[in-house]
Amino acid sequence: MSTPTLQQSPTRAHSRILGLGAYRPDQIVTNDDVCQWIDSSDEWIRKRTGIITRHRADEHTSILDMTLGAAEEALRSAGVAGSDIDAVIVATVTHPYATPSLAAQLTDRIGATPAPAYDVSAACAGYCYGIAQADALVRSGAAEHVLVVGVEKLSDVIDNHERTISFLLGDGAGAAVVGPSDTPGIGPSIWGSDGSHWDTIGMTHSLLEVRDLSATAQSDTESAVTALETEAQLWPTLRQDGQTVYRWAVWEMAKVARRALDAAGITADDLAAFVPHQANMRIIDELAKQLKLPDTVAIARDIADAGNTSAASIPLATHRLLAENPDLHGGLALQIGFGAGLVFGAQVVVLP
Amino acid sequence: MSTPTLQQSPTRAHSRILGLGAYRPDQIVTNDDVCQWIDSSDEWIRKRTGIITRHRADEHTSILDMTLGAAEEALRSAGVAGSDIDAVIVATVTHPYATPSLAAQLTDRIGATPAPAYDVSAACAGYCYGIAQADALVRSGAAEHVLVVGVEKLSDVIDNHERTISFLLGDGAGAAVVGPSDTPGIGPSIWGSDGSHWDTIGMTHSLLEVRDLSATAQSDTESAVTALETEAQLWPTLRQDGQTVYRWAVWEMAKVARRALDAAGITADDLAAFVPHQANMRIIDELAKQLKLPDTVAIARDIADAGNTSAASIPLATHRLLAENPDLHGGLALQIGFGAGLVFGAQVVVLP
Ligand SMILES: CC(C)(COP(=O)(O)OP(=O)(O)OC[C@H]1O[C@@H](n2cnc3c(N)ncnc32)[C@H](O)[C@@H]1OP(=O)(O)O)[C@@H](O)C(=O)NCCC(=O)NCCS
Ligand SMILES: CC(C)(COP(=O)(O)OP(=O)(O)OC[C@H]1O[C@@H](n2cnc3c(N)ncnc32)[C@H](O)[C@@H]1OP(=O)(O)O)[C@@H](O)C(=O)NCCC(=O)NCCS
Repeated sequence: MSTPTLQQSPTRAHSRILGLGAYRPDQIVTNDDVCQWIDSSDEWIRKRTGIITRHRADEHTSILDMTLGAAEEALRSAGVAGSDIDAVIVATVTHPYATPSLAAQLTDRIGATPAPAYDVSAACAGYCYGIAQADALVRSGAAEHVLVVGVEKLSDVIDNHERTISFLLGDGAGAAVVGPSDTPGIGPSIWGSDGSHWDTIGMTHSLLEVRDLSATAQSDTESAVTALETEAQLWPTLRQDGQTVYRWAVWEMAKVARRALDAAGITADDLAAFVPHQANMRIIDELAKQLKLPDTVAIARDIADAGNTSAASIPLATHRLLAENPDLHGGLALQIGFGAGLVFGAQVVVLP
Repeated sequence: MSTPTLQQSPTRAHSRILGLGAYRPDQIVTNDDVCQWIDSSDEWIRKRTGIITRHRADEHTSILDMTLGAAEEALRSAGVAGSDIDAVIVATVTHPYATPSLAAQLTDRIGATPAPAYDVSAACAGYCYGIAQADALVRSGAAEHVLVVGVEKLSDVIDNHERTISFLLGDGAGAAVVGPSDTPGIGPSIWGSDGSHWDTIGMTHSLLEVRDLSATAQSDTESAVTALETEAQLWPTLRQDGQTVYRWAVWEMAKVARRALDAAGITADDLAAFVPHQANMRIIDELAKQLKLPDTVAIARDIADAGNTSAASIPLATHRLLAENPDLHGGLALQIGFGAGLVFGAQVVVLP
């Protein structure tokens, strides 16, 4: 039997972001609120991080609610119906079920069934990872319109009483519709990882410890109770080595950002906007300085109001920049995400 | 300021699977073992599912160990060094940390740093979803060599005493290296979801219930004890509505499989092998019948020995087929994954 040659889908020359959406939950947590839980001060937090408030979702607002809020706005803004979406990518680390994915649920709710749907775990680089994948799917002909959502309900995985990361974090969702374009709208993605720093940001302990305690509880409630009383915490929450992340972000991410500019064939002078992951205002300022951004470049500083929302921070910050500066539409933005893994992702995009 | 046109990476015409790897954990769980935990029989399980044994990892074998075992063999078999890998995709639902990803850890261990690394949540379709993404990344020029791993330590998320799914499941890992090709090696992916059946396969309850109990235990041990004593289980485990999955798999997946053949421009007669997700021997037989596969097509029946290993089942089953039938190398295989979401993914591939 001779083996026939497989057919392939026709490719597309270019892709771009067609529209953005954002969801910011109602509850505002101030630095004074935070200082009820940890030994800190409004002044210290503002000076070291630039954060003044963060938004957090209440117990009645699920991660699906937030995801839907951002996705629906992105669809409206792109002028694309849910039924025209060919793939749904949700970047998140806070979906509270091992399976099924949040993306499958979202796909049903926006009327995009039977589009493929999957969740991506790439922490604070998740949105840029999603854009890299969406660009590849559109250009390779695997999909025409891809919905990318970055969403986190980080308040579910923080211990308000811990002092290395909890005070930085907020909840939120941002979404983008990526589709075909006549001109290049997404530059080459400079994305990567450094797993030798796997322990730098992560969870206090493994979910398997919860499993083991659950098993103990079935046979021996007393031991389980002793464990619950003596162990600091059963539920794994986020922690980090902030100094290491800070140094890595400032030094390594400046190089990654420059490579994204080079790969796109442009310079900092060509940019209309710079949208780094909203991790710390000092990191944002330092990156802007190292990239020698001219004064004409709008710099996203959403963190002051939103805190660090992980995978949601870049689309949220871009959404706000566009709302406040309508003349940015059609300009070039350099976006760069980085976080737990460690992982990073950057690309130059044409603003929708 | 006039906006310059962004450069793009050069695209590649075709991709293919260059090599496969497999990891099967040591422990063998027989039907008689299973019948210690649930009211069933060796005969019932064989007749209704075709499963005789499943492999499960012991407590000293982590999901990372399994992932590494499969990945290293895939790299050797493909003749590709870890340092030549440009992207690492791990399909899993059993990594026991919300973040960082298993992929970032794997990337470091195989010497592929600084390759981008992310985990994908698409349940038993995860491997086919990973192949779809790898194909798009290679052809769009975003990556040259992509490592795709499907891995599950399902024994961590099952309750051996439950009767809808636990007895079906095994642990394992399978991996593929996808790279450039002179001829088409991966046909168009027919992938999708139906989130209206989100509840059909999934967890017994949300991880947020664990979080809430943990919070209660900190302030009010007595209530926590009552909860531990009265709630059936703290740790969320898998459950399913088997009948619904069975019917969906048999009817809908036959259509998806036919669409994958059509999209690749071939017929069942052109196939050398059929590798469906190893969920149930009766589903495998029924799909083969509906697809009218000629006797010349080798059908993967790894389930008898391996059970259902979710994202790992297709690469494991393909690996075994190739080991047992070396003449299949270079032939065409139709692979189809399906599971919780509900999600599905199918494509015709040239066997490495
Ligand atoms: C977390 C971060 C704000 C801490 O700031 P820092 O300047 O590195 O702080 P250090 O850990 O060096 O501690 C400096 C001092 O502040 C104190 N401190 C630490 N956390 C504090 C807090 N939350 N409030 C008040 N004081 C604090 C320390 O105890 C130390 O006091 P000392 O000098 O008396 O010993 C900073 O490291 C950071 O933002 N890193 C990047 C983290 C990040 O972005 N992570 C997410 C990436 S996705
Ligand atoms: C799970 C599965 C084997 C159950 O087989 P089934 O034929 O559908 O079984 P039903 O649920 O209809 O139950 C039929 C009978 O078997 C019994 N039964 C159910 N599970 C049983 C078990 N594990 N052992 C023994 N008997 C069992 C039922 O109690 C029922 O008994 P009754 O007729 O006296 O009332 C089958 O539905 C299946 O494989 N579905 C697909 C699941 C799957 O592949 N999921 C993963 C996809 S990724």
